[in-house]
Amino acid sequence: MDNPVGQHERTKERPRSDETRQRLLAAAAELIAERGWGGVTTRAAAERACLPHGAVSYHFHGKQELLTEAALRAVERMIPLDRLETAETLTGLLSLITAWMHDESAFDAVSSGVLMEAMRESERDPALRHHLSTLLAEYRRSLAELVDTEQHRGTVATGPAPSALATLLLATCDGLLLHALLDPELDVVEATRALHALLRTQSADSEGRPDSPTTDPRSPTTPDHE
Amino acid sequence: MDNPVGQHERTKERPRSDETRQRLLAAAAELIAERGWGGVTTRAAAERACLPHGAVSYHFHGKQELLTEAALRAVERMIPLDRLETAETLTGLLSLITAWMHDESAFDAVSSGVLMEAMRESERDPALRHHLSTLLAEYRRSLAELVDTEQHRGTVATGPAPSALATLLLATCDGLLLHALLDPELDVVEATRALHALLRTQSADSEGRPDSPTTDPRSPTTPDHE
Repeated sequence: MDNPVGQHERTKERPRSDETRQRLLAAAAELIAERGWGGVTTRAAAERACLPHGAVSYHFHGKQELLTEAALRAVERMIPLDRLETAETLTGLLSLITAWMHDESAFDAVSSGVLMEAMRESERDPALRHHLSTLLAEYRRSLAELVDTEQHRGTVATGPAPSALATLLLATCDGLLLHALLDPELDVVEATRALHALLRTQSADSEGRPDSPTTDPRSPTTPDHE
Repeated sequence: MDNPVGQHERTKERPRSDETRQRLLAAAAELIAERGWGGVTTRAAAERACLPHGAVSYHFHGKQELLTEAALRAVERMIPLDRLETAETLTGLLSLITAWMHDESAFDAVSSGVLMEAMRESERDPALRHHLSTLLAEYRRSLAELVDTEQHRGTVATGPAPSALATLLLATCDGLLLHALLDPELDVVEATRALHALLRTQSADSEGRPDSPTTDPRSPTTPDHE
């Protein structure tokens, strides 16, 4: 249980085999959201994926590994770490975050259901909790690097440590996602802009940077989201 | 289902009757955390509270009302709105929040389990979602009033609207609680201080206000939490 999830398989993956894994993970995610973590069996996951039951044990060390990996993928789908790492400025990053809040494919009922079930299950399963907190720590590390760069550029307030601002950014992002799930009318754009305004130094303003994260030309979003 | 939870009983409560309600609500909360929302029955709640089954239907319109009220109480126990409204400054408020993060009685496994189950259930039950989002809106209103007062005092950055900062504050608070559940080592004090530093104007600093929320003399906490 303490091995990195799926490690033993990742080293010998072939394209076909990888497709089988993906189908099992997608099936597991659907079932977690529908039935709750405790209600999923490896047999049901194989059936949902239209695969023989043996495919599960070939690819995963049992139910908990299958479901844990499905949960970690749900986090990564909601906030893609690789795209987060491509953000070169905090403005660009906040644009990405605002875009995700509006992106229904990332923010679907399956992903949010899986994440809440995983949070619940992590109270019972220390290995799952460890995997989730390790993933969150990776996000924080990546955010702290960006904050550090921006502080050296003089565009982000230099008082707080990069690690503190990274913890704050990630928590805010997750909290906004959670509250937007409960209240789809919640103005997350206004809140993200407020965060941006607080982080930005006055020198960043006077350099004529965009005054809103959603108007950043580097943003992959279109402004008509607002 | 659309009536305010428990409204029909609250108007004719007697002390003894109120104690019965409290016992049923506490029993329901325990059972939600242990078995999940779907696994709780009114019979089990009555048994756990050592009361006859009829006590449930005397006090609540069925299972969903009992469990919904138990969930709303868990939110209020985690972040007591009445104490939040006593905070006269943002510094005082952030002290309260930091204290709650360290207060194990507020931050227990039952409350967090109930909240996660309620979030899951709110996907299925629009009335529960409405109650939860209404409660969050009350918190935001209270926070926005405080922000507005502080902005008029010149102690909080005046760029963002009070409502935007209130949304941001509540989301950050909830996100930090969630992440601290996954990782008890997470430095929430550092993150709360960073938030405070971002919100504070330079004029607030030069007036010699305390530079950390946890050193505010109005704080009910002791500084050795850090």
